[in-house]
Amino acid sequence: MNTYQRIVLAARPQGEVLPEHFRLESVPVPPVGEGQVLVRHQYLSLDPYMRGRMSDAKSYAAPQPLDETMIGGTVGQVVESKNPRFAVGDTVVGMGGWAEMSLSDGAMLRKVDTTHIPASAYLGAVGMPGMTAWYGLNHIMKPKAGETVAVSAASGAVGSIVGQLAKLKGCRVVGIAGGSEKCAYVVDELGFDACVDYKAGNLRADLKAAAPDGIDAIFENVGGEVFDAALARTNAFARIALCGMIAGYNGEDIALKNVRTLLTNRILLQGFIVTEHMELWPQGLTELGQLLAGGKLKFRESVAEGLAAAPEAFIGLLKGRNFGKQLVKLA
Amino acid sequence: MNTYQRIVLAARPQGEVLPEHFRLESVPVPPVGEGQVLVRHQYLSLDPYMRGRMSDAKSYAAPQPLDETMIGGTVGQVVESKNPRFAVGDTVVGMGGWAEMSLSDGAMLRKVDTTHIPASAYLGAVGMPGMTAWYGLNHIMKPKAGETVAVSAASGAVGSIVGQLAKLKGCRVVGIAGGSEKCAYVVDELGFDACVDYKAGNLRADLKAAAPDGIDAIFENVGGEVFDAALARTNAFARIALCGMIAGYNGEDIALKNVRTLLTNRILLQGFIVTEHMELWPQGLTELGQLLAGGKLKFRESVAEGLAAAPEAFIGLLKGRNFGKQLVKLA
Repeated sequence: MNTYQRIVLAARPQGEVLPEHFRLESVPVPPVGEGQVLVRHQYLSLDPYMRGRMSDAKSYAAPQPLDETMIGGTVGQVVESKNPRFAVGDTVVGMGGWAEMSLSDGAMLRKVDTTHIPASAYLGAVGMPGMTAWYGLNHIMKPKAGETVAVSAASGAVGSIVGQLAKLKGCRVVGIAGGSEKCAYVVDELGFDACVDYKAGNLRADLKAAAPDGIDAIFENVGGEVFDAALARTNAFARIALCGMIAGYNGEDIALKNVRTLLTNRILLQGFIVTEHMELWPQGLTELGQLLAGGKLKFRESVAEGLAAAPEAFIGLLKGRNFGKQLVKLA
Repeated sequence: MNTYQRIVLAARPQGEVLPEHFRLESVPVPPVGEGQVLVRHQYLSLDPYMRGRMSDAKSYAAPQPLDETMIGGTVGQVVESKNPRFAVGDTVVGMGGWAEMSLSDGAMLRKVDTTHIPASAYLGAVGMPGMTAWYGLNHIMKPKAGETVAVSAASGAVGSIVGQLAKLKGCRVVGIAGGSEKCAYVVDELGFDACVDYKAGNLRADLKAAAPDGIDAIFENVGGEVFDAALARTNAFARIALCGMIAGYNGEDIALKNVRTLLTNRILLQGFIVTEHMELWPQGLTELGQLLAGGKLKFRESVAEGLAAAPEAFIGLLKGRNFGKQLVKLA
């Protein structure tokens, strides 16, 4: 009998995520029923939102069930199809999970063209992370040319796109990232105007130097001290797209101290989940795809090899050890 | 020589406001020049925003200068006019300050009709506090009939109007106020559905009982624990009009702990200052005036007698000792 490997949630973390919260299993390849598609995954995407799903605290999405395949975005090739919309060999993006294969009814599968865009980019710059950046920038932050935009987790899958899109709009773009190597990449490769290394110990002073005219819009991925420092530099009528708070995903204290600034600077803050704005994805993905194919968007990937490497890669992502979009290569 | 009394800022408070931060003075009544209007004030309005002006910390408005008349809204009668727009005896609203009289060029003076609305209401329900309520509710919170709206400082000049306007829209309205007397007033007189006494020691449990279906929109006047408790009860896509944070006006810690809720519930938060939306005042004041004259808006006033009583009344306001709109009767 043919089998494939998958990783299930074995236990819910209390605080830090550890390898024992996951379990690697071999399971039989299922038969393909009428209307169904079997996909062999080429890449699995690892993303911070998965940490939230591992908890059973009330959130915007149902928790990941125990003993079932971990949720995750995937890109791969159709290996068997009884669905007229898909042919064997098609490259498709979907939510196949932490697994080498997945069976689907095709409803949530999207065929993609890899002529000008590599398959893995559909999990990053031209996928959910790219759309997250595009939505937050265009629909919440709405920066004008000449304004200063700050982006935390600036070298990451989302932050790197936010900053490049803001540069294309004529903004001054200030990244915040962990470590001099990431900061050098953000400025030298991605073209941000400045990048502040929050690990260097002078976050507020460095941010002041990097944003001498203040900050007009923030894309927030981190929370805690990083968010407070950016808030302290805001100008009146600043806009904040609140996308993530990775600093607190293990239960760390991420209390916001500069809360008065929200009032005194008449700030607009909007928390958002990009999957609730699917009506905008066709437009956003088209724009992102054109920019990428035209060489106007750069991205970087951290690729772990093989499904068994996924838990450590995910733990590294939560600790900021990745550099750019974190993927797992499965085939 | 004729004189009148005024109160100037004598020193900036470090923390709590004390009587010695103010100084009562007698000054000469100025001559009325061409185009000018001399007004004898009937009422002075005391409002929380004044605390911010007493500090020289960076904020949305310039600090109150030392040794000059404290800023403040006033209603009074024209006693001398060399401005064709105003006649002796007209009742006018303006920013006359903590003083028995003021001289004005008329630009910021507004003639009001006291046939159906008492003069003092133009400093409350049909003035800046009423407009603050109207703007936050209609332009930020935008509640639908059936939704639950929470209002802190519910018995105050602003909160009382927010709740009554929300009731008129068909919302369930939950007030938060300090003490059983204020809570009884909010429910029995103003018609809120429930009111939680934050001093009773069971804020979160009481709020849960008062808002069993969660909270869809918050009008926040207080900050700190009160804000955190309301946030903890929000539903997805809740809207927050951030109007004030009186819990922290003396430098108290008002860090926001439930910051993750802003993300998980995809909350919209907007800080605002109603004087930046003057284009909406004619519409808002017309609506508020019609509701008040029609008996559909109730309000309550705490009236201190004489200018010398203003500092203690203001200190009481910051401590929540007032009950309803705090005024000083000057004539």
